[in-house]
Amino acid sequence: MRVSDLTTPALLVDVDALDANLADMAAALPGPRLRPHVKAHKTTELARRQTGVGHAGFTCATVREVEGMAAAGLGEDLLLANEVLDARRLGALDARVTLAVDSEETLAAAVAGGVREVLVDVNVGLPRCGIAPDRAGRLADRARAAGLTVRGVMGYEGHLMMLGDVAERARLTEECMGRLLAAHADVGGELVSGGGTGTYALNTWVTEVQAGSYALMDTAYTAAGLPFRQALTVLGTVISVTAPAGEVPGWAVADVGLKALGMDHGNPVVPGAQVWFCSDEHLTFAPDAPLRVGDRVRVVPAHVDPTVTLHERMHLVRGDDPDPEVLDTWAVDLRGW
Amino acid sequence: MRVSDLTTPALLVDVDALDANLADMAAALPGPRLRPHVKAHKTTELARRQTGVGHAGFTCATVREVEGMAAAGLGEDLLLANEVLDARRLGALDARVTLAVDSEETLAAAVAGGVREVLVDVNVGLPRCGIAPDRAGRLADRARAAGLTVRGVMGYEGHLMMLGDVAERARLTEECMGRLLAAHADVGGELVSGGGTGTYALNTWVTEVQAGSYALMDTAYTAAGLPFRQALTVLGTVISVTAPAGEVPGWAVADVGLKALGMDHGNPVVPGAQVWFCSDEHLTFAPDAPLRVGDRVRVVPAHVDPTVTLHERMHLVRGDDPDPEVLDTWAVDLRGW
Repeated sequence: MRVSDLTTPALLVDVDALDANLADMAAALPGPRLRPHVKAHKTTELARRQTGVGHAGFTCATVREVEGMAAAGLGEDLLLANEVLDARRLGALDARVTLAVDSEETLAAAVAGGVREVLVDVNVGLPRCGIAPDRAGRLADRARAAGLTVRGVMGYEGHLMMLGDVAERARLTEECMGRLLAAHADVGGELVSGGGTGTYALNTWVTEVQAGSYALMDTAYTAAGLPFRQALTVLGTVISVTAPAGEVPGWAVADVGLKALGMDHGNPVVPGAQVWFCSDEHLTFAPDAPLRVGDRVRVVPAHVDPTVTLHERMHLVRGDDPDPEVLDTWAVDLRGW
Repeated sequence: MRVSDLTTPALLVDVDALDANLADMAAALPGPRLRPHVKAHKTTELARRQTGVGHAGFTCATVREVEGMAAAGLGEDLLLANEVLDARRLGALDARVTLAVDSEETLAAAVAGGVREVLVDVNVGLPRCGIAPDRAGRLADRARAAGLTVRGVMGYEGHLMMLGDVAERARLTEECMGRLLAAHADVGGELVSGGGTGTYALNTWVTEVQAGSYALMDTAYTAAGLPFRQALTVLGTVISVTAPAGEVPGWAVADVGLKALGMDHGNPVVPGAQVWFCSDEHLTFAPDAPLRVGDRVRVVPAHVDPTVTLHERMHLVRGDDPDPEVLDTWAVDLRGW
């Protein structure tokens, strides 16, 4: 099967770019120094490829992701880096599951659900989840008193990922991690987990980095100056073309709309064209060179995570051939909740 | 089962609001005057409820939607109001399928795919698909010469749906429909299809309106002054609460993130709270009255169509009980392409 045989819109993964990203990250953060975050790709076959470059533990954002990873035989060390109030599905899994807790209520849910290991989630500056650093030790004590193993702390400096000024990103990362290390001194345990694609090279304080977007990338992270290659595009078909008329420039429409793209970071990029707007099933854009109805285009999403979750599968391709062979197709099998 | 038993995030549909919306629209546009658009809800059970108030024909935006409607036995008169370059899946269906065409290429695809009926899609002012009005007649001639039945024209004044000034919305709708009627004079056929939720009451020129959002509604259409009730919310669980500290106000986090919400119209609304921001699986907001971890919240999406497509099912509830019974669960079975 070739790309021209695919129904559009369809996710394409440049396997050489993907493998380069996985190799570069594994060189920077080998083995357990990286706990890849599956939320960015939601694909167990891609996670399996991450094990192939040396990472055995994974980060998840949802119970469904943990379940799917366990079912795929990738349950050696799964961290659900998120709070849940119903942990029963986690406790029932045949996998090593560590759950984030940041309150008495989430700790009680972990116990009630049969989870045996937890991390204390610490607020390091992003106004989201996480307990205040000076209260982390007490929560760890309660967890141990309840019979749980406390593996350490986690804290996510998510508000710094896209900060354009790298020196400022580094300075603030150090400040956030100071809070996390203070909490860790009280909590104990072998893990200090945090960071992401935006700070993977700057965050030298954690024992493991939770990066996920580096594998497939998007325009927002590329704009943040990261060295990883754009591996993910959304293949579309040009379904309509309108020629210039008087002062109105011409435009083309591809079948890659906002139901095929994560839109929270704005419009996607079409190389060699200016994007006008997205509708549910349409992308209207002005191409630099005329396109014809039936032509294929590759659209670069602004945000990888919510783009991938809209698709049932991703197709692996290689090279610059305009109509390459489809080397493999992976199910995006960790969607939903 | 009660709402407190549901895994979150989860779509909730207020069945009384839904039924009121369906009844109000059916009173305004009875029977064939409305061709409900399924792209807004992607749910054959909801479409079946629309047949219950008298609408037999439906509008679809994707081949998958047409297939799913046909498979559900709702294929009496399905319009794919969109261009496709591969119509083979449509031609193979046991249903009445009418396909939009706006070019020689899409007409050729209809013929090659075994489609027997078409509408000529006319550009009425929105820079998207659609042939220029003065070329529509010639395309209809070619379609008839190729053995197809031409049922008429369609044109979508999508750029007017959210226009705040209703008088201006009406004036521009008339202008757009003037173009569509001019094309119809050349094309012929019994159908003049167009309009949407934003212009359903203003567009008196079409023979049928393609509205979809009216059934479930969202904050954007409510802001546009439409009379329909908000029937759709996303149920979430409060997973973390941070108390005020000094000058920093307190906040809560629910598990309704941007992977559970269409974000192209911006942040959702949480009644009784100020929304700060959405992350992949989190919504951070400042509630007017304190919330506790484990509390449930109902989040109102800004854009219904891309919200629904992120969920596998929707749950029907009734009334103001904080923990109502789940009356029924419908699969969102028209997702994908």
